[in-house]
Amino acid sequence: MDQPSIKTLDTDPEYRAAVVDLLAVLAYGALTAFERIAADAVMAPTVDDKAALAGMATSEYRHFETLRDRLIELGVSPEVAIAPFRQPLEEFHAHTAPNDWLEGLVKAYVGDGIALDFYVEIAKYLDPETNALVLSVCEEMGHSAFAVDRVRAAITADPRIGGRLALWGRRLVGEALSQAQRVAAERDALSSLLVGGVDRPGADLAEIGRMLARLTENHTKRMAALGLAA
Amino acid sequence: MDQPSIKTLDTDPEYRAAVVDLLAVLAYGALTAFERIAADAVMAPTVDDKAALAGMATSEYRHFETLRDRLIELGVSPEVAIAPFRQPLEEFHAHTAPNDWLEGLVKAYVGDGIALDFYVEIAKYLDPETNALVLSVCEEMGHSAFAVDRVRAAITADPRIGGRLALWGRRLVGEALSQAQRVAAERDALSSLLVGGVDRPGADLAEIGRMLARLTENHTKRMAALGLAA
Repeated sequence: MDQPSIKTLDTDPEYRAAVVDLLAVLAYGALTAFERIAADAVMAPTVDDKAALAGMATSEYRHFETLRDRLIELGVSPEVAIAPFRQPLEEFHAHTAPNDWLEGLVKAYVGDGIALDFYVEIAKYLDPETNALVLSVCEEMGHSAFAVDRVRAAITADPRIGGRLALWGRRLVGEALSQAQRVAAERDALSSLLVGGVDRPGADLAEIGRMLARLTENHTKRMAALGLAA
Repeated sequence: MDQPSIKTLDTDPEYRAAVVDLLAVLAYGALTAFERIAADAVMAPTVDDKAALAGMATSEYRHFETLRDRLIELGVSPEVAIAPFRQPLEEFHAHTAPNDWLEGLVKAYVGDGIALDFYVEIAKYLDPETNALVLSVCEEMGHSAFAVDRVRAAITADPRIGGRLALWGRRLVGEALSQAQRVAAERDALSSLLVGGVDRPGADLAEIGRMLARLTENHTKRMAALGLAA
């Protein structure tokens, strides 16, 4: 069955737990993105570049606020809900700390893009209210386009940079997948959003395959926009 | 003469240069505060604390935007206007990088307070439009009060921390004064905002003395609020 059934936060405790997990992982994802992008802003060569990254970090903080406020509205402690996701997200960032300004830009652009795609995909499996919240955060995303010009200019000036940044892009995706698998394995409720639960059908394998294909294809397009092989 | 004369950006090139310098140093001060506070958020023990510091960093970024946009409105390149102030501000932060979360909190609280006081003092010497802009940034400040509870609780738990943080507070002020003196010595137009120029009276020595007394007194009160000797 391709169409998910109608789920509600009030009548389905497993679905409610899944939504709390989702809001928590997205919230902490946004807060750690804030921290990482702000740290990368320090490496920016010009005030304009610094300001562009700082502005992006600032919008990540606003996403965090929106998601955290919704957790509070649902009567959940953000501290408690986020706790299971701290280690995977902190490890992702620790394993992908950019060595220079260009690696930071690629990470911001690729990460912002994958996050936006994932928000749009997961939104399909949510009740109307949570769906609207997740999509409202999406409207705020996509501020990383300035990275494209900067990265392309750097590759034009020194083509060897392209090879290094292409490898870096692959490493980012590899780390993201490995942490995502870990989260999926440990958080049954969250995984059930996609694959369904006892009484609730989710996406079938074919649909999950198409979703992964869409995510991969968009990532490849973004790498190409940067002038990089995916 | 205590009352400054009426100055305008259009008719007084020295005053205009002074305002450009002032907006630039305040803008870069806000942008580097964003970077420092965001970096300190990484050390926060809980998600709530992290979020509180990240929120403060975010409002520093908004101050930066307001001030930068005004520079652009005046037909000035922010990059060029900010250039002379990069080194003193970056050195200030390099010399006062907090070693832990509590030092970060004291720096955020004390720094936010001194900045707010300085904005209010300097605003008196500005034309009405620049005055309104500077005071509008002030309204956005003062988000660091959460630091007080955290610092006091840490000192209650381990009173030895109080001695270390009091020393830290003195070091922050010492570094800030030494960089401020450097800026004042190198930027005649900026200094003339306070002390007056060829055709424009500024504050007399007595008034500058009173201003320094007010800044010092407020700093001592903030240190006392944290439970620290100034």
